[in-house]
Amino acid sequence: MSEDPIRFFGLGLGPGNPDYMSVRARKVLESADRLVHFCKRGRRGNARTIADAVVGQDPAREIALVYPVTTEIPADHPDYAAALNPFYEEAAARLLDETRAGRTVAVLCEGDPFLYGSFMHLWWRLKDKVPTEVVPAVSGMSGAWTRAGAPITWGDDVLTVVPGTLPEGELARRLSGTDAAVVMKLGRNLPKVRAALATAGLLERAIYVERATMAEEKIVPLLQLPEDFDAPYFSLIIVPGQGRRV
Amino acid sequence: MSEDPIRFFGLGLGPGNPDYMSVRARKVLESADRLVHFCKRGRRGNARTIADAVVGQDPAREIALVYPVTTEIPADHPDYAAALNPFYEEAAARLLDETRAGRTVAVLCEGDPFLYGSFMHLWWRLKDKVPTEVVPAVSGMSGAWTRAGAPITWGDDVLTVVPGTLPEGELARRLSGTDAAVVMKLGRNLPKVRAALATAGLLERAIYVERATMAEEKIVPLLQLPEDFDAPYFSLIIVPGQGRRV
Repeated sequence: MSEDPIRFFGLGLGPGNPDYMSVRARKVLESADRLVHFCKRGRRGNARTIADAVVGQDPAREIALVYPVTTEIPADHPDYAAALNPFYEEAAARLLDETRAGRTVAVLCEGDPFLYGSFMHLWWRLKDKVPTEVVPAVSGMSGAWTRAGAPITWGDDVLTVVPGTLPEGELARRLSGTDAAVVMKLGRNLPKVRAALATAGLLERAIYVERATMAEEKIVPLLQLPEDFDAPYFSLIIVPGQGRRV
Repeated sequence: MSEDPIRFFGLGLGPGNPDYMSVRARKVLESADRLVHFCKRGRRGNARTIADAVVGQDPAREIALVYPVTTEIPADHPDYAAALNPFYEEAAARLLDETRAGRTVAVLCEGDPFLYGSFMHLWWRLKDKVPTEVVPAVSGMSGAWTRAGAPITWGDDVLTVVPGTLPEGELARRLSGTDAAVVMKLGRNLPKVRAALATAGLLERAIYVERATMAEEKIVPLLQLPEDFDAPYFSLIIVPGQGRRV
């Protein structure tokens, strides 16, 4: 074979329960020379925690990419790109060096790598420089609607997926008239999202889901959540469709 | 343990490549007493074909549920529900009998069971009658955007998922102004979908994907597809987002 071996992996690990990892993801996880994960300063990343069931701590294999900022700066502020751009540039250069030294590098991703994944910012910098494979995964939103016992789309239902980071008016506009919805990136956006769902007439059907498929899973109708509830960033809201049942 | 054992499974098998099955799905596939799949008359279903890599043909375990109609009758026509309702009722009764005889029954699902899955029509009939587990999976649309090398949502992108079965005007309205899109259930709806994408200004960015992650995979810009192209029902179109890259 003249084809170059794959050296760079975007490794989707799914919503959290290690049994929901794909066979392919497990195999790459076991064999990769370097396991890369994103994290906040002083914390392990969620993706790395999911991998614990398969690979124990091994300092020689670990590369932690520590975000210089996370939610302290709004993502549409110039300071955000000014901080994140050099972070991704340096990380990409570092991982490229690893692959050029003949090592395989797997970037661990919570959920599905190509659905709002940080990995994408490394991927587009490296995809033309090193043989790359992206391993798709069960998405966080799929873990949520499955565990909530809430089929998301029936018949001809339209599904709208929005990030909670959008302004309230924009959220309400995008959600109005949809049959089913998922609101990602909740965290401190929760009060704004709640107001937008009310405007769009979806509040009564909304379900709050946190850490779906994991031991600490929390699933509750949004209307039952206290007004001052402190939602983590990786929580989400689903609004199941009500389309044709035969 | 006083808890009843799970007897009824909705088993997501993913987009097609058996390596993308979850560890949990493989385990249930290997152990279930009955393997149920939906199919058209005279054909094996796609989900059953995906399972071939794990379980060979075993007549004693197989239950094929043959749709009385598929696309011959529009789904919003009264004759459609009139044909499908007794089909699902009888199938549910038959599977319930199997579970009451102490057997575990796994309904094999292509993609993710709770995203437009036929399984859902059995699930809501049986979920309160027998202990049930739904195993989420990599969705067909995730297989498509991954294999197309096309991250679907960046930054604050909104994703709209529509079934191609909707009327053209409705499709155009739902797709207008979205950042990223997936059109499911393509088949003979392709010409209509193409027109709706043009109206929504998304035609140039649209990618046609058929059998993603499988050997016969076909991925091509929609504009390069012949006007009279004959798309199978389980093909789809993706329109990748163009949101914030840092």
